[in-house]
Amino acid sequence: MTTSDHAWMARALQLARKGLYSTHPNPRVGCVIVRDGERVGEGWHVRAGEPHAEVHALRQAGDRARGATAYVTLEPCSHHGRTPPCAEALVKAGVARVVAAMRDPNPLVAGRGLERLRSVGIEVASGVLEGEARELNIGFVKRMEHGLPYLRAKLAMSLDGGTAMASGESQWITGPAARAEVQRLRARSSAVLTGADTVLMDDARLTVRAAELGLDAEQTDLALQRPPLRVLVDGRQRVPLDAPFFQAGPALVASASSARAETYRAAGHELLALANAEGRVDLPALLAALAERGANEVLLEAGPRLAGAFAALGLIDEYQIFVAAKFLGSSARPLLDLPLERMSEARELKILDIRAVGDDWKICAVPSTAQAKPD
Amino acid sequence: MTTSDHAWMARALQLARKGLYSTHPNPRVGCVIVRDGERVGEGWHVRAGEPHAEVHALRQAGDRARGATAYVTLEPCSHHGRTPPCAEALVKAGVARVVAAMRDPNPLVAGRGLERLRSVGIEVASGVLEGEARELNIGFVKRMEHGLPYLRAKLAMSLDGGTAMASGESQWITGPAARAEVQRLRARSSAVLTGADTVLMDDARLTVRAAELGLDAEQTDLALQRPPLRVLVDGRQRVPLDAPFFQAGPALVASASSARAETYRAAGHELLALANAEGRVDLPALLAALAERGANEVLLEAGPRLAGAFAALGLIDEYQIFVAAKFLGSSARPLLDLPLERMSEARELKILDIRAVGDDWKICAVPSTAQAKPD
Repeated sequence: MTTSDHAWMARALQLARKGLYSTHPNPRVGCVIVRDGERVGEGWHVRAGEPHAEVHALRQAGDRARGATAYVTLEPCSHHGRTPPCAEALVKAGVARVVAAMRDPNPLVAGRGLERLRSVGIEVASGVLEGEARELNIGFVKRMEHGLPYLRAKLAMSLDGGTAMASGESQWITGPAARAEVQRLRARSSAVLTGADTVLMDDARLTVRAAELGLDAEQTDLALQRPPLRVLVDGRQRVPLDAPFFQAGPALVASASSARAETYRAAGHELLALANAEGRVDLPALLAALAERGANEVLLEAGPRLAGAFAALGLIDEYQIFVAAKFLGSSARPLLDLPLERMSEARELKILDIRAVGDDWKICAVPSTAQAKPD
Repeated sequence: MTTSDHAWMARALQLARKGLYSTHPNPRVGCVIVRDGERVGEGWHVRAGEPHAEVHALRQAGDRARGATAYVTLEPCSHHGRTPPCAEALVKAGVARVVAAMRDPNPLVAGRGLERLRSVGIEVASGVLEGEARELNIGFVKRMEHGLPYLRAKLAMSLDGGTAMASGESQWITGPAARAEVQRLRARSSAVLTGADTVLMDDARLTVRAAELGLDAEQTDLALQRPPLRVLVDGRQRVPLDAPFFQAGPALVASASSARAETYRAAGHELLALANAEGRVDLPALLAALAERGANEVLLEAGPRLAGAFAALGLIDEYQIFVAAKFLGSSARPLLDLPLERMSEARELKILDIRAVGDDWKICAVPSTAQAKPD
């Protein structure tokens, strides 16, 4: 590991981040090829089914890849997927050294890519800026390691923890900068998850809207090409098919029964029947089903009831709490329906970051590992 | 105004801040005397009744004050208080120029100090770093301009806005760094204000404790010499005289009736009867009475009921909200008892600052000026 290893890997991560809105279900990956201290090629993975980052970088480098060092934010793949294995491509190009930020958590790779390189005498290093690399693919890593997506809950509250008035009166309590941030959280997710309450009360559509993203043209374009799957938890099928949510495009409905499956299908939607013993939608099973379909990051945008249910089950990996600088008062609806009796039951969190977003503030917090799951 | 004017005034403010815990009811004032670009004297006001900042600085400067520039964070006084007027002292010392950060809001001075200096041919400037100077004496300024103290509410809540469990179970939800910060907020205040609920439920004493202040020896000493007046709002005289609050030293009790005044007095306390039309303690009248007694900054440390009552009346100038990284759940007690019906009644705030305090976070917010007072 040298200082320049870090610098080149930082560049590779920067490239990888360009795929933030478009690579899923694949991970975001960037690659830089350096010979004699000079960058001779670079690339990033754009969309699943298209060439991997290494391929773009090798193409750009051409003959100059011979004897060069390749910096990759994820271990090069060793298996034939929709594209041929990148480890082979690096071998063929004659690179002398490969530096990876992290091993591929995909059980189909898991070290085999680096082994393959080593087996032909290529110098191999791994673990450069690994923390940043894991963070960038936090959903992909979670899915590969646990068979579940990374569940991010977006919440919006007043400074005194209220979300709506007791009457149900509700409206955007945060400003345009916070809304743009929510749009970007949606766009980077493989799926957005909401509940019948939110869809019925707020006419929510959960779509990604170009004008509100606040991204440049290229990123906006990519985001719109790979919009997240919109998922509605509607145990009793209360949301009518003419609701704006259904009118906005095809959606997946998680219900406690398979009734009316044909009706949903005819309207272009899919019904997933997932009942638990209490006859409610089985939320852990729903997340597993989304992971099966390749969902890396899932954004939960729901009211206190559904968000509280996910929280009570210990299923939320990260909270993104937008805080509006106002008091809604003591009759307002709570952030989460999460009835706790004793102080000892309080859910411990770790606040990672608090920062201003326009006139609002955003708190990013994760459950303390000791208490990530309920007793 | 020159760059060096700003630099010297910054030094004078730094000196003034040494009086943060001890000058009240007087303002915190610092003074630097500069001749030929060199500092020849400096001083700060330590305690009411003792020499003002200018006197200390002039003593240190001696003959070198002749022809020098004096930087003062507040207009020099022109009236005989417990000490002779500083404007006269500056004239006698023969300074050539006086730069003040701000005019004295005290109606007994209010420009007369600067006028007096000008009248004898001293060059006078005012308004250098005025914002910082006003901020440092925010309570003194409020009292002089409005006849009320600056009311700062200290609140502690979980990330979801809870303050205690529904059962009343309550404990410090924030950590030692936050407690030290609260100690310093108390120490800088002329009075700390609490309610019967807090004193009865938490055995609160509202004292300043040397070991928890986290200040150096000199500042700790000064803080303990001038502890804030402890004020209890106890409309129905529910707190018994053997409660830790009363055992911790003399206190002022604001009650709705003058009954038992003699009992309180015999125990070393003072009873102030201030009933409003509803037979409750008249909170605006209480604040006015504290201002009468020279209270500049008052710290409100109360439960949701009393804090909510002050908030509902628009009497709170600043919120210092300590946030513990945990969820107390939806049955927890609210931050403020402040029942609001409609979204349009929401109280708008401006968040000035959010920062980490140990493992907790602190939000500093002020009411938006447009809505500082209720309709």
